[in-house]
Amino acid sequence: MSKEVTMDKITALAKNRGFVYPGSEIYGGLANTWDYGPLGVEFKNNVKKAWWKKFVQESKYNVGLDAAILMNPQTWVASGHVGGFADPLIDCKACKSRFRADQLIEEYLKSEGIEDISVDGWSNEKLEEFIQEKGIRCPECGKADFTGIRQFNLMFKTFQGVTEDSKSELFLRPETAQGIFVNFRNVQRTSRKKIPFGIAQIGKSFRNEITPGNFTFRTREFEQMELEFFCKPGTDLEWFSYWKDTCVNFLKSLGMKEENIRLRDHEKEELSHYSNATTDIEYLFPFGWGELWGIADRTDFDLKQHIEHSGQEMNYMDPETNEKYVPYCIEPSLGADRVALAFLVDAYDEEVLTDSKGKEDTRVVLRFHPALAPFKAAVLPLAKKLAPTAEPIYEELSKYFNVDYDAAGSIGKRYRREDEIGTPFCICVDFDTPEDKCVTIRDRDTMEQVRIPVDQVRSYIEERLIF
Amino acid sequence: MSKEVTMDKITALAKNRGFVYPGSEIYGGLANTWDYGPLGVEFKNNVKKAWWKKFVQESKYNVGLDAAILMNPQTWVASGHVGGFADPLIDCKACKSRFRADQLIEEYLKSEGIEDISVDGWSNEKLEEFIQEKGIRCPECGKADFTGIRQFNLMFKTFQGVTEDSKSELFLRPETAQGIFVNFRNVQRTSRKKIPFGIAQIGKSFRNEITPGNFTFRTREFEQMELEFFCKPGTDLEWFSYWKDTCVNFLKSLGMKEENIRLRDHEKEELSHYSNATTDIEYLFPFGWGELWGIADRTDFDLKQHIEHSGQEMNYMDPETNEKYVPYCIEPSLGADRVALAFLVDAYDEEVLTDSKGKEDTRVVLRFHPALAPFKAAVLPLAKKLAPTAEPIYEELSKYFNVDYDAAGSIGKRYRREDEIGTPFCICVDFDTPEDKCVTIRDRDTMEQVRIPVDQVRSYIEERLIF
Repeated sequence: MSKEVTMDKITALAKNRGFVYPGSEIYGGLANTWDYGPLGVEFKNNVKKAWWKKFVQESKYNVGLDAAILMNPQTWVASGHVGGFADPLIDCKACKSRFRADQLIEEYLKSEGIEDISVDGWSNEKLEEFIQEKGIRCPECGKADFTGIRQFNLMFKTFQGVTEDSKSELFLRPETAQGIFVNFRNVQRTSRKKIPFGIAQIGKSFRNEITPGNFTFRTREFEQMELEFFCKPGTDLEWFSYWKDTCVNFLKSLGMKEENIRLRDHEKEELSHYSNATTDIEYLFPFGWGELWGIADRTDFDLKQHIEHSGQEMNYMDPETNEKYVPYCIEPSLGADRVALAFLVDAYDEEVLTDSKGKEDTRVVLRFHPALAPFKAAVLPLAKKLAPTAEPIYEELSKYFNVDYDAAGSIGKRYRREDEIGTPFCICVDFDTPEDKCVTIRDRDTMEQVRIPVDQVRSYIEERLIF
Repeated sequence: MSKEVTMDKITALAKNRGFVYPGSEIYGGLANTWDYGPLGVEFKNNVKKAWWKKFVQESKYNVGLDAAILMNPQTWVASGHVGGFADPLIDCKACKSRFRADQLIEEYLKSEGIEDISVDGWSNEKLEEFIQEKGIRCPECGKADFTGIRQFNLMFKTFQGVTEDSKSELFLRPETAQGIFVNFRNVQRTSRKKIPFGIAQIGKSFRNEITPGNFTFRTREFEQMELEFFCKPGTDLEWFSYWKDTCVNFLKSLGMKEENIRLRDHEKEELSHYSNATTDIEYLFPFGWGELWGIADRTDFDLKQHIEHSGQEMNYMDPETNEKYVPYCIEPSLGADRVALAFLVDAYDEEVLTDSKGKEDTRVVLRFHPALAPFKAAVLPLAKKLAPTAEPIYEELSKYFNVDYDAAGSIGKRYRREDEIGTPFCICVDFDTPEDKCVTIRDRDTMEQVRIPVDQVRSYIEERLIF
């Protein structure tokens, strides 16, 4: 009975209910920046907390880190970002429009219905040749006359101190991963962790994308949740498989539908030269399959780069075998905004209800896992004069989780409002409540109601937050 | 019996135990940037969670927001940051060293023991005159020959898109507050909040300070926790007082010592032209009193600036009186890194213990409120072979809060290690535990021990996390 989910519906609901607003909207916005509203910040925080719980708090292997966004620029020389982190740009000679060459080809392949060609890993020469060979046309003016490819570095540049010269040039980090690698020794020493162990981090990164888009799927400013898991060389493919499973299970444990998830292993030619294996977990967005979580076996590439560029030792001495080695690293890298968008899309449902007279009505409901819902519950007094009974219930529950309070409009309307923002439990305070100290709990998904004592409400809800 | 707390001791403990490392350390660091290690990230997250709990989750007035760091540059024209957010810089003509004129004077006043002059709010002319009049000398070379004052804007500049021209110039936000003001209408409409209500936000801000310093007290990249509370004009001083009290109570409820907190009201001449009242909550750091929390009555200044520059309506229509007005705003603004540093300093203690033979020993202990402690508990098996009993206890508790597990070294040494990182409860698993299903809980502060059943440990700890 469900209707189709579109990005327009998601974006409109997000804006109207306070999940996500266009950034700087009163000034006409700023190219695909987004601000999380009152419900969005709770929702996204819940996503981040869920990840931290499973990947740090409950993991006996991993510890957390929060490194600065501004790093010594040598970091980005060592990591390869200064030299190689660039998009291949191409200009239409006729109308001067600028495109990413790889995306130009992808659009072309899509429009031609060609599905068995992937441009990942293609050299600039190969991209240029393909565009020429196929006579690909400019999507703006229709001419097929492009310049050569020019590399454009994706790092945002800024300046520290009072002068704007190259000596004070800094970059906004394009990934959180390097903050982990440069701290490998510090963390290992102070946390006294033994291999295998991981370092997890949540934080903002910035990429000067030419074509951000698809709502919060691709933005220039975004938040990452990255784990760098260090293990003994030779055990890396085993751990690669372990973390791949853990990631998929994480998504499923929070209710993401299996049919919307798929794994895509990178082909050998698509792999970075240092990578032993890479798999993308993709999600089926309304605009198609999109990368959600990249899991890569990066071998000892990153640590070795930093050893070379910093001149510092980063060997690990195995306390049992006395072997000395540079650990291999498995990196599951997830975008917080992107996975939040996936959970939002996945939760969206329009349910057609038929009343006793055969009249149809559509209920919009966000079927979030309770752990992700912005409000865990809403306290709804049946009448405003029940406030003296309802408010203490709201206040008590608010000590433990985020609760809404709504006394305006018919109870049916209020249920629908809570459905639309994904509140799993509505606590209806009625005229019997002052006497029998019981409330009715209405379930968002089944719309069924149970009556329970007020002092059991907290544990009733807390049990259902577990994942 | 306690010894003096110094910044050197705090910085050393922070680095050695994994609270805070120098940023990009393997590359020689980057001017006063800092990375939070495994314990630091938990600790700082706890500070942020505590603030969010009291200022959003439990507040019936406030909702949250998470606006982007990159905003439309018009925002900073309207807010006055493009025109006026600058430091007064002065150069020594002899040795070319550069200083902030106000700080140069402050240093001079300090060295002369003058305490009744405050340079806050002084014009550049007044600063220049004072330096000349007093013959203040260059701290570097000792000469008294300075240039005039030049204003240096503190916003970090960057560029969006493929060209570096003024059209694509952006700023890293110097405060989170403006993200709230530009979203005032969106939040009010979608959350259906009525005046008085507030919007709270946690997020990174950036200021190109000339002289960052004092560990994490003043850094160029820092995290703010700001509330903008909107109220009816005329009620503002009442709410100003309400939030001042709430802020002080927040610090005390988390155990901050009263004698280390003081309130400093801004004098009339020190107030911004639009402010009705401003009070700083200051904390007594080892380097002296430092601003912790600024609480300001900003009247309708910010919203009116945005109305003027955006051309958008931001009046509030009072649904009861039908009055239309631009709300006044109270702003309690707190630095997350700074208040975390204050809690760290406040918790630091060196306790001199005397054993039965009269031998003295010093115990370093971080007396964090349990809600702020990185680990809530540590599971310590008395011997390694007790792992089959100890590990399930660790795993069960880890579902609810962050727990350490340590099986290495004597139990006394392990207690001391936990004391030094502020773990409030050590759970000792001994040879009786497999039989009697009881553990000994050792209190960090009193060092007293109680024996309780394993299945009561979780609630024993959770009760003590409440604040």
